[in-house]
Amino acid sequence: MGDMKLVVFGAAGRMGRMLVTTIADTQGAVLHGATDRPGAGAIGKDAGLLAGVGESGVIVTDDVGKALDGAGAVIDFSAPAATVALAGLAAERGVAHIIGTTGLSEADLAALAEAAKRNVVVRSGNMSLGVNLLAALVRQAAAALGEDFDIEVLEMHHRHKVDAPSGTALLLGEAAAEGRGINLGQRSVRVRDGHTGPRTPGDIGFATLRGGSVVGDHSVIFAGPQERITLSHHAEDRGIFARGAVRAALWTRGRAPGLYSMADVLGVG
Amino acid sequence: MGDMKLVVFGAAGRMGRMLVTTIADTQGAVLHGATDRPGAGAIGKDAGLLAGVGESGVIVTDDVGKALDGAGAVIDFSAPAATVALAGLAAERGVAHIIGTTGLSEADLAALAEAAKRNVVVRSGNMSLGVNLLAALVRQAAAALGEDFDIEVLEMHHRHKVDAPSGTALLLGEAAAEGRGINLGQRSVRVRDGHTGPRTPGDIGFATLRGGSVVGDHSVIFAGPQERITLSHHAEDRGIFARGAVRAALWTRGRAPGLYSMADVLGVG
Amino acid sequence: MGDMKLVVFGAAGRMGRMLVTTIADTQGAVLHGATDRPGAGAIGKDAGLLAGVGESGVIVTDDVGKALDGAGAVIDFSAPAATVALAGLAAERGVAHIIGTTGLSEADLAALAEAAKRNVVVRSGNMSLGVNLLAALVRQAAAALGEDFDIEVLEMHHRHKVDAPSGTALLLGEAAAEGRGINLGQRSVRVRDGHTGPRTPGDIGFATLRGGSVVGDHSVIFAGPQERITLSHHAEDRGIFARGAVRAALWTRGRAPGLYSMADVLGVG
Amino acid sequence: MGDMKLVVFGAAGRMGRMLVTTIADTQGAVLHGATDRPGAGAIGKDAGLLAGVGESGVIVTDDVGKALDGAGAVIDFSAPAATVALAGLAAERGVAHIIGTTGLSEADLAALAEAAKRNVVVRSGNMSLGVNLLAALVRQAAAALGEDFDIEVLEMHHRHKVDAPSGTALLLGEAAAEGRGINLGQRSVRVRDGHTGPRTPGDIGFATLRGGSVVGDHSVIFAGPQERITLSHHAEDRGIFARGAVRAALWTRGRAPGLYSMADVLGVG
Repeated sequence: MGDMKLVVFGAAGRMGRMLVTTIADTQGAVLHGATDRPGAGAIGKDAGLLAGVGESGVIVTDDVGKALDGAGAVIDFSAPAATVALAGLAAERGVAHIIGTTGLSEADLAALAEAAKRNVVVRSGNMSLGVNLLAALVRQAAAALGEDFDIEVLEMHHRHKVDAPSGTALLLGEAAAEGRGINLGQRSVRVRDGHTGPRTPGDIGFATLRGGSVVGDHSVIFAGPQERITLSHHAEDRGIFARGAVRAALWTRGRAPGLYSMADVLGVG
Repeated sequence: MGDMKLVVFGAAGRMGRMLVTTIADTQGAVLHGATDRPGAGAIGKDAGLLAGVGESGVIVTDDVGKALDGAGAVIDFSAPAATVALAGLAAERGVAHIIGTTGLSEADLAALAEAAKRNVVVRSGNMSLGVNLLAALVRQAAAALGEDFDIEVLEMHHRHKVDAPSGTALLLGEAAAEGRGINLGQRSVRVRDGHTGPRTPGDIGFATLRGGSVVGDHSVIFAGPQERITLSHHAEDRGIFARGAVRAALWTRGRAPGLYSMADVLGVG
Repeated sequence: MGDMKLVVFGAAGRMGRMLVTTIADTQGAVLHGATDRPGAGAIGKDAGLLAGVGESGVIVTDDVGKALDGAGAVIDFSAPAATVALAGLAAERGVAHIIGTTGLSEADLAALAEAAKRNVVVRSGNMSLGVNLLAALVRQAAAALGEDFDIEVLEMHHRHKVDAPSGTALLLGEAAAEGRGINLGQRSVRVRDGHTGPRTPGDIGFATLRGGSVVGDHSVIFAGPQERITLSHHAEDRGIFARGAVRAALWTRGRAPGLYSMADVLGVG
Repeated sequence: MGDMKLVVFGAAGRMGRMLVTTIADTQGAVLHGATDRPGAGAIGKDAGLLAGVGESGVIVTDDVGKALDGAGAVIDFSAPAATVALAGLAAERGVAHIIGTTGLSEADLAALAEAAKRNVVVRSGNMSLGVNLLAALVRQAAAALGEDFDIEVLEMHHRHKVDAPSGTALLLGEAAAEGRGINLGQRSVRVRDGHTGPRTPGDIGFATLRGGSVVGDHSVIFAGPQERITLSHHAEDRGIFARGAVRAALWTRGRAPGLYSMADVLGVG
């Protein structure tokens, strides 16, 4: 069984170059194709040189179909419309589709589900192995522990982040709510200031820290009578998203068609 | 369905009184019997008064069989010989047996397994909900993450503790080793000092802190490329062991005979 | 030099009994007097027996002057009016006054300052050694680090706490603001939710967690470019306030009259 | 007052390029000179281009004296012999000397002390602002807290680190020992395994974690009766050493000759 042949969709962008770098560092994976938008400056250049990892022999092209031919999987952190279009092309060729694109609408998701009837599709709002594993563990812990364990989600990000709580904090809150069988929207406490009264049993609280150059820290705390469990993730670098996507791509080999999550890739939850 | 009728075996000792207190605080549980050794000063006294939670109407007795009659479960943090003897008495009467006794030999465990053929028996080396849940999560995380995630177990206990690492740290290390499919004894690193050389992939490291009046803190760290997952437990009070045992007792209602662990009680792992 | 003779003002209350216990446990300190309100049930009883530490030979009295005679210091966690009255009695007798009373008005503070012209007075809003030391360290760190280090204050307390942030979190925020030479009221961010925009340089942020039976955890985070300093305090038990007050009492021996803080007692800041 | 003119000694190495980058990012600082060894490939090239921050107009030279002429300070992370030679050249010209060189002998240190009689010299074994601030805070905390607070030093570094504990952990342990007035060598516990017996009061313990790509985490824990203070530093990137050196260089302006530490630069300790 040879190396898994991978295509990077949008290979000249920041994430695309990180993907090319990660593939070069990953045993069992090889760069097979690289694409960019028609007219982009990167077209015709070597994808490895663009990423700073030396000549790869793979030239960036705007002919997506051609790039996909003979590939095992395509990795895609692009935009909703491009992702939906790519889903069809990949399904026609039986090239597994790894999707880290965010902002997908219900209609987009339906289109991806359609493609997943005949192709292997892996999609997640956060491609990091660690965060997805954490979410699976949080779901189980929330299911195992009763309401005498209060759930709190804490996150810290750098000073430039403009929204709170982070998408990942909400993803972890969702996992906790699923484990508990409750609706997060109805049971979350996102602000505490002044006279708050005692905590309402069963609520899920959020707290946000901002400062410095923190890439992303998340903790889910289960605070019960006389004991506390804390499940945390610390990101050092945004490269973890590329790494998770490449791992997902390797995992698709030999899978049946279907829409998978990172929890499936990890074999948890 | 009425309250679960519980017997505390060894009700006058430190853990026994904590169990009586916990039962008094637990909805759905009621103290049904309380025992102590023949000739002990507590015989004939009210178990609730001994525990400082007010009169319970349950008098401490040295007649174990009588105490068990009509009960749903008996909780036992005693010594190996007493536990094995109790296993037979409880099985005869169909009273579930919750065992927090430590230091059991292979022969003792075989006797308990025998009793578990016709009775519900729950046994764990650490009855805390949190620690058992943590162990289950550690096992899964270790199975899901490859060798590029290094596993480290950190613990802190009070200044009076005389051994290292703690039994719970070893239990968590075992859970990690099981998840990985390796032998902890062959792959653990318990000391680092001076020139150690680089870390051997796949090893499980331990580190020990001692100081103050710390009841017990444990963390299992999965340190991978550019990200880290940390799963932690913080104990505030030794009462968590009583609490876990009472929860196990409530859980036994309606179970088929068998030897169960706290992971079964929690529905994890 | 004999043991320091201490009086516990309000010896029958929860904090009073904790003080009696702490004095019994502290080398160099001896219980000399114990008071309670006229008509209280504890009057005439042994203070040691009330606290559960065995007979002390000190009978609880409502005659404060008599209890103070011959004493070295009096410890007082009472209410503003009682504290102000006690300040005069203690000053007359040259008995150092250790004050943990909260809710003092400007007029109360002025009366204490007056008494401190001729007596040794130690006052703090939080008598714990650890929290006061932490505040002194936070003040220095804030002074040493420029605005490229963002300051965040995080606290966690049990589920029953009804206000946020905690008084201690605000005390730590004040210490940071003092170190920075800014006004906390004008520069604190107590809520983050939704679109917040980037962090304003120089602000001090607060975040609050609630859950379980947590006695009190506080962290002050200095998040700078590529590095982070975190200064934390973890309380296991409310007995730390009694312990700090007794240490302050021992420290007063041989001091010149004046109004002192716990920072003075600790020799920091 | 114009920008502070800085010379980078050894500008083509990894740390030298980081220094050039940091100077380019620092308001009030300007690159004035850049040196490398005679015969090195970088001689004659633009220091900014080498560092990837655009043309700086400063050409790397092997004529150190010429590079120093007109400069305010020189930053030096080189080797002992080169540092001692540079100390003389810098002192002759009144150019402040910032030294991050490690492995200096007693004789080297004496030579630097000699130069510091007529020049401003700043030297530290760890140039990070955060670590030096932490050391100063640790020293004070250790002095303020008695032996009923046990001191533990915990560190974590990446899987490739070959020695334990880290130099920075030992530096923090030294700071604690100084605060306590004890000798670290006689009172440190670097290994705990098996039957250790209870903790000896006054000892300073070390614990080491290794894994993943952790740049460097250090915590000093003061564990006392019922409370704990933890002072921690988290490094995201080795660039913090360059940043601290540039800050030290800016601080030298207008100082009297002398041998200074990073604690002086920070105004702590």
